[in-house]
Formats: sequence, structure tokens, C-alpha cells
Amino acid sequence: MRTVEWNYATSQFQMIDQRLLPGEFKVAVFDDYQEVAQAITDMVVRGAPAIGAAAAFGLALAAQQSAAKDAANLRADLIAASDYLKEARPTAVNLAWALDRILGATADIQGGADDLREAVLAEAQKIADEDVEINKRMAAHGAALIDDGDTVIHHCNTGALATVDWGTALGVIRMAHEQGKNIHVLVDETRPRLQGARLTAWELTQYGVPFDIISDNAAGSFLSSDQVQKAFVGSDRTAANGDVANKIGTYMLALAAHDNDVPFYAVVPTSTIDLSLASGEMIPIEERDPAEVLDLTLLGRQVSPKGASARNPAFDITPNRLVTGIVTENGVVYPPYTDNLRKAVNVTTS
Amino acid sequence: MRTVEWNYATSQFQMIDQRLLPGEFKVAVFDDYQEVAQAITDMVVRGAPAIGAAAAFGLALAAQQSAAKDAANLRADLIAASDYLKEARPTAVNLAWALDRILGATADIQGGADDLREAVLAEAQKIADEDVEINKRMAAHGAALIDDGDTVIHHCNTGALATVDWGTALGVIRMAHEQGKNIHVLVDETRPRLQGARLTAWELTQYGVPFDIISDNAAGSFLSSDQVQKAFVGSDRTAANGDVANKIGTYMLALAAHDNDVPFYAVVPTSTIDLSLASGEMIPIEERDPAEVLDLTLLGRQVSPKGASARNPAFDITPNRLVTGIVTENGVVYPPYTDNLRKAVNVTTS
Repeated sequence: MRTVEWNYATSQFQMIDQRLLPGEFKVAVFDDYQEVAQAITDMVVRGAPAIGAAAAFGLALAAQQSAAKDAANLRADLIAASDYLKEARPTAVNLAWALDRILGATADIQGGADDLREAVLAEAQKIADEDVEINKRMAAHGAALIDDGDTVIHHCNTGALATVDWGTALGVIRMAHEQGKNIHVLVDETRPRLQGARLTAWELTQYGVPFDIISDNAAGSFLSSDQVQKAFVGSDRTAANGDVANKIGTYMLALAAHDNDVPFYAVVPTSTIDLSLASGEMIPIEERDPAEVLDLTLLGRQVSPKGASARNPAFDITPNRLVTGIVTENGVVYPPYTDNLRKAVNVTTS
Repeated sequence: MRTVEWNYATSQFQMIDQRLLPGEFKVAVFDDYQEVAQAITDMVVRGAPAIGAAAAFGLALAAQQSAAKDAANLRADLIAASDYLKEARPTAVNLAWALDRILGATADIQGGADDLREAVLAEAQKIADEDVEINKRMAAHGAALIDDGDTVIHHCNTGALATVDWGTALGVIRMAHEQGKNIHVLVDETRPRLQGARLTAWELTQYGVPFDIISDNAAGSFLSSDQVQKAFVGSDRTAANGDVANKIGTYMLALAAHDNDVPFYAVVPTSTIDLSLASGEMIPIEERDPAEVLDLTLLGRQVSPKGASARNPAFDITPNRLVTGIVTENGVVYPPYTDNLRKAVNVTTS
């Protein structure tokens, strides 16, 4: 199954509950868009493209839930639901992008409330289907950067679980493997929520790609001893100048890659590029519950002393000077990013 | 009590079991030097200066255990025990330094086996006492680098628990606090064994120094947003050129400090400086059990998929170009390190 998908038999929305993997594979089912928003906040689903598609299907649920009898009243309900869903997480731009796209694409729908409901679901499905197709195009562009025999390092989870299906940075790695290249992956465990150790390791096991998990702080040791040839990461939002907002730790990984002349690539669908922001400093960074650090909530045991406090920023900004190339579905973009990212985005929107 | 100490009432050696902190405070008692070696390997005790003192008292146990009736036979047993203890962990130089110092200092002892036994214990005690005194001298030199209002970032544990008492880098921070400076500490949790979240947080709570724990990969985010004024770390071994071998993750922290013009200091007793090694590349790096990463052994639950593999280097090398200054008991040493470290060491040995 896909990570996020609409169940046409029951008119419900369903997602793999990523908090339980790899120990348990469970599908969470939703009838209520507010519960979808909560599930995004709680990271039942995570990864910018998957969040975007989840929000899109959440809006389809909102359309279904609305008691509106005409299109105008339904549209008002959809706008309110969209605003609600946008609050679920601040950093990934796909969330707002997907919701705005649906509202825009259905703005001129003729007919009654049910026609609008149908159009909203159709556009959400289109977003989901396109995500898979875009990921495979990115994977083809990115896999060309990987040589036979390479060890690549990867941060967080950017695979099928972070998208509707296939993946971004991990999709590139998977494609290189499917092309028959002999590759090895160093998997950053990615504290505090361990998406690497849990989700990326789970996916790579399924794909048959050889890997080793490392603690995030060990990346520099491997990069400085010629054991890594390339680094691939995703992005939750990329500014117009190529500054990359991604899972906390990406910036330090990029520094270590740069210090050792190891190429560092961000793999980002153009839906993740926010041309409205001149630089990464303008990207809002979510700070999450300190308990994720303090209590190792995921792991069920408090490791720090009682009363200890923590800080828990979920993302950081990697300045464009540390980014070798940005892989999009329209090809690999190189500096100067402010010019070249705009061109890559315009291929899609024109 | 001290982290490691000889119990003169029972003629036993005792250490705080650091694996259980902060949940449980337990003292482990030893009669057998081979058990001390195992305890060093298992990280009942850790931190270069504490390891050195533990090995020294381990040798005193070996002297006590030996059935030798004369000094020559006892010396042969001591050399064998020293070789055994040196194998416990490879990276920290204090282990070998302390053992060699005792063997050297007792080489010319006149008299019988019991005189030699007494001299070995006396020299071990001297090493332990000097460690505390040296730490306080380093703390005074280092605290002068900290300004009122500073937030300082710290990696691993370098406090009283990493030494016989007081601490190295954390000793500097504690001294600044005791001088009445208003400071705040960002505590790297320090995966995989979480010495920061467990031990440093525990010590800072006792000293009343305000702090926040962060995941190691978040350090870059705080450093790049002007939230940190200085970085202080310890060192398990420092090469003649100032390359610093320290707990895994130190190199990436140093890169992030350097990228943001935040001064980065290593606090190292001269016993930790290995003038016989021209550069850090020659320092042996211990690779520990992958289970520390994979299974989160400390935390009692496996987070990665069954069959997943991991790599677990315990230390990395921070090149001297990233080190602003090296705080020793003989003052703060600045580049060029190859000249100036030698001078700082020679103050002690001449």
C-alpha cells in the first residue's frame, strides 16, 4: 500500500502509522480532518511530500464532513479546514502548497456542493499520484550522480514513508540500487525521533540495499576518513537562494561533507521550493516537545535527571554554499541557485 | 566521595558505577585488577583522567594480589598486569601514561616486595590527588575565557565523573559558575551512550548551573543562530600538533563552531597530550559494539529492524585548525600548537 491513500470503498483516508515502525505495521484510518491535522502534528505521518498529500486528503474529508448544501457554503468550510490543517506543522511548505493548490484548482468548479466535493477529492488524488511520478523522475536524475561502488550517507527518512510512495533522497539511492549499482548506505539514526534507525533502515532492509546505522555525530568520522563518496538528503522547504531547511542535523552533516570535499545533494520536488522566501533565514523552524530529547519518549525510559530541561528544534537551515546540487524532477540544479532554481520551478508551473 | 578512590580501611578499590546514573547511585568495589580492566572496557568508569586513575589503582590491586615474595618477582607481575590493563581501552592515553608512571617511579625502590607494594599504592594515590589539583588549575585558566552572560556548549561528560574529582571542560564551566558568572550550558546528549544527557546533566543539576539538553545534531542550529558564545570539550588524547581525539561528535561540533566564529576550546591535562604522535591521524580510534547504536542497549529497547547492522566509532579527531585554544594546567595554549604544546608539557615534566 501507499504511505497515505484514499480508500474509495469506505470513503475514508488511511495512513501507515510511522510511530510504530519497525516493530509494528499498523494502518490508521480517518473520517475527520481535525484528526488528520493532529496525526500530522503527532508524526503518525512525516516527510514533506507525505504531509502534503495527507493534508490534501484531509481536505477531502473536510468536504465530506461539511453539511453545506451549496458550493459557496462548502467553499467557506473548506477554507476554514485548510487554515486549520496548515497549523499542523510549520516548516514543510508542501502542507500549505497542497491545500492552496486544491482550493485554487477547484475555485471555478461549476455545479453544487457534491460537484465541489468530487473535485476536491480528485485534485487530492492527483497530488498523490503526481508525487509518485515526480519522485521517480527525481530518482532517475539523482541516481546518475551515484557511481558503482559508492558509499552514500543519508539523513532522516526520505523514502516511500516520507512520500506517497518511492521517496526523494532515499528514492535516488533505491533507484541506483535497482540499476544494479553496488552501493552501501550509511544511515544517520537521526535523533531525537530516530527516523533513520527506525524507518530508513526498515525500508533499506526491504529493498535489499546494504547499510550500516550510525549515530548522527559519527558522520564526520566517516566523511573525514574517505569512507563516504556522496551525501543525499531531502528538504522540507528550500528557499529561492538554495538554502535548505531539513531535519535537524542536516547542517552539521553538510559542514562535514564540505570539509572533506564530499558532494552534498538535496533531493527536492519543486513543490518544496518556496520562491517567495529569498533565503533560509525566513523559513519558520518548528521547536518540538523537549520530552522527545529528555525522556526518549519513543523508547519508554527517561535517561536524563528529573527536572532537567531540553531544547528540541526539529529542523535546521543548510546554507546554499554547502549544497553541491539540488535534484528536482526537472533535473539537477547547480549554483547560482537564485537563477537556476527559479528556472527549474518554472518548468513545472509554466 | 571521589569518582575513583582507594579504600584504606578495606584495602579495596571503589568507583561510582556510571552506567546506572542518574537513575541509581551505586559504588562498585574491586579486589581484582582484571575486573578493573573489564570495568574500564564496560564503561563502569569513563573519561580519560578517571580511566588513568582507575588503572593506577588497578595496578595497586595487582601488587596486592601477587604472591611474589621478592621485589623482582613482584615487578614482573606488575609489568604483566600493566600490559593487561592497557588493553582495556585504546584511545585515551592516560591509561598507559598512569601505568608507565607508576612502573617508572617505583623502578628504583629498595627493599622487599611489601616496600614495592606500598610504593605502587602511594604513586597511584599521588596520581589521583594530582588529578584533582591539576583540574582546579585548568579550571582557573579556562574560567577566565568565559564571560558573564555566556551560553557555552559542551560535549560528552568531562566533569567530576570523568576525572578523580572536579573535571576538565565541565570543571571550567563549574568554576565560572562558582565565580558568580551568570552562565547557561547547552548539553550535547552525546549518543550513543548519552553521557551528556545522563552524567553532565546530573552534575550540572547538583552544581546548580542552568542548562538545556540538546540532541548532538542540534548544536549547529544553536551555533548558527547566535545562541552560543563558546564551546568547551575534553580530550582523550591530543597529538603534538594540537589535533584532538575526543568523544565521537567533537569534530562536527568544532566544524559548526568554526563556521560561526564561536571559540572552541579543548581542556586537557598535560598527561593527555601525546608528544610522541605528530598528528591526530596516528591516534588509534576504538570502535565499540554496534549494539550501543542498534539496540539502544542502555535504554532497553531495540529501535532498529531485526538484522540491521551498525558502525560505532567511539572517538573522532578534530583537526587543530578548528581548535581556538587548548586549556592545560599550565595555561591556555594557542597556535602554533606544535611549538606551544611542547612548551606547556615541558613545564610539567622539567
